[in-house]
Amino acid sequence: MDYYAVPVAKLVEEFQKLPGIGHKSAQRLAFHVINMPMEKVQGLANSILDAKQKTRYCSVCSNLTDVDPCPLCSGTSRDRAAICVVQEARDVVAMERTREFKGLYHVLHGAISPMQGIGPEEIRIKELLKRLGGGEVKEVILATNPNVEGEATAMYISKLIKPLGIKTTRIAHGIPVGGDLEYADEVTLAKAFEGRREI
Amino acid sequence: MDYYAVPVAKLVEEFQKLPGIGHKSAQRLAFHVINMPMEKVQGLANSILDAKQKTRYCSVCSNLTDVDPCPLCSGTSRDRAAICVVQEARDVVAMERTREFKGLYHVLHGAISPMQGIGPEEIRIKELLKRLGGGEVKEVILATNPNVEGEATAMYISKLIKPLGIKTTRIAHGIPVGGDLEYADEVTLAKAFEGRREI
Repeated sequence: MDYYAVPVAKLVEEFQKLPGIGHKSAQRLAFHVINMPMEKVQGLANSILDAKQKTRYCSVCSNLTDVDPCPLCSGTSRDRAAICVVQEARDVVAMERTREFKGLYHVLHGAISPMQGIGPEEIRIKELLKRLGGGEVKEVILATNPNVEGEATAMYISKLIKPLGIKTTRIAHGIPVGGDLEYADEVTLAKAFEGRREI
Repeated sequence: MDYYAVPVAKLVEEFQKLPGIGHKSAQRLAFHVINMPMEKVQGLANSILDAKQKTRYCSVCSNLTDVDPCPLCSGTSRDRAAICVVQEARDVVAMERTREFKGLYHVLHGAISPMQGIGPEEIRIKELLKRLGGGEVKEVILATNPNVEGEATAMYISKLIKPLGIKTTRIAHGIPVGGDLEYADEVTLAKAFEGRREI
């Protein structure tokens, strides 16, 4: 046990519970917070509470939002014929960063994982199917993670959507840009080969 | 600019201001906090406020504490004849971790640095001298950092203390345990050589 004043020890402990923060970083953060001016500390504490209290899931796409429906769903600038399906809210941020996709999103909040007891009912697949009823949507892009759970989820959803006559696509697997063939694992390399295109 | 709901963006921004936390980590922390149960979020926010509000500097040693004087200064189990002088409160934690030192501490809250406009008046040297008046203290161990500012501060303090007839010592420089001679810089190696002892 390290020697700290009680409130300092408590804060170090709290910081240590956060992902990617070990004891050293937690201690560094705690001492930094104590040296911050009071109004900045208050600002940090309020931001934490606000982010929790003022955000909820969009009733349409299940993305994190402070207004319902979220700006992406209610906006007029987006292509309503395409829905990109992702596992987590942070994946929406990643996709938006590419500036490639102008359609709508659907956040599943997880992936099917029998190992962890997560079945299709535990993630927001039902909500996705509900959105496809109107006939407005022409393409569903499955952008779940390229691992066992993500692939299984993509396969499961595509089997449900195909009968509806909606085009279903999966994001490409391959060598990352800037990556090195030599260091790519064989599955990725095989996928990259399989997905080759004429240039 | 990334796409986030406003309270999420605000929290990512706040986390990013903390030391050692970049944009990716800040985003990860923010999404983690939003997924935490409400009472845990409240606990985190309260710990942050408490650590700031309930800690102050000990009126004797200037260490962070929630009671004044701090448990180290008011305790009866510590050797009151030795004072270890450190730059920051976190250095007390590091020293206590060694379980080697059983005396008292004095936290300077900085080091003399003419480059940054920090003179001897800006750090708690005056408070240290006041503690040496009683004749109880037999040794002052200068454990400031082994860099230019820390050395200058140690030199400055030792010159003030020597006339009082109190033994003044400096922690040893040398090769870190587990370190490699080949990778030690020449100054460290020279200091290690200079500080050699008979075995």
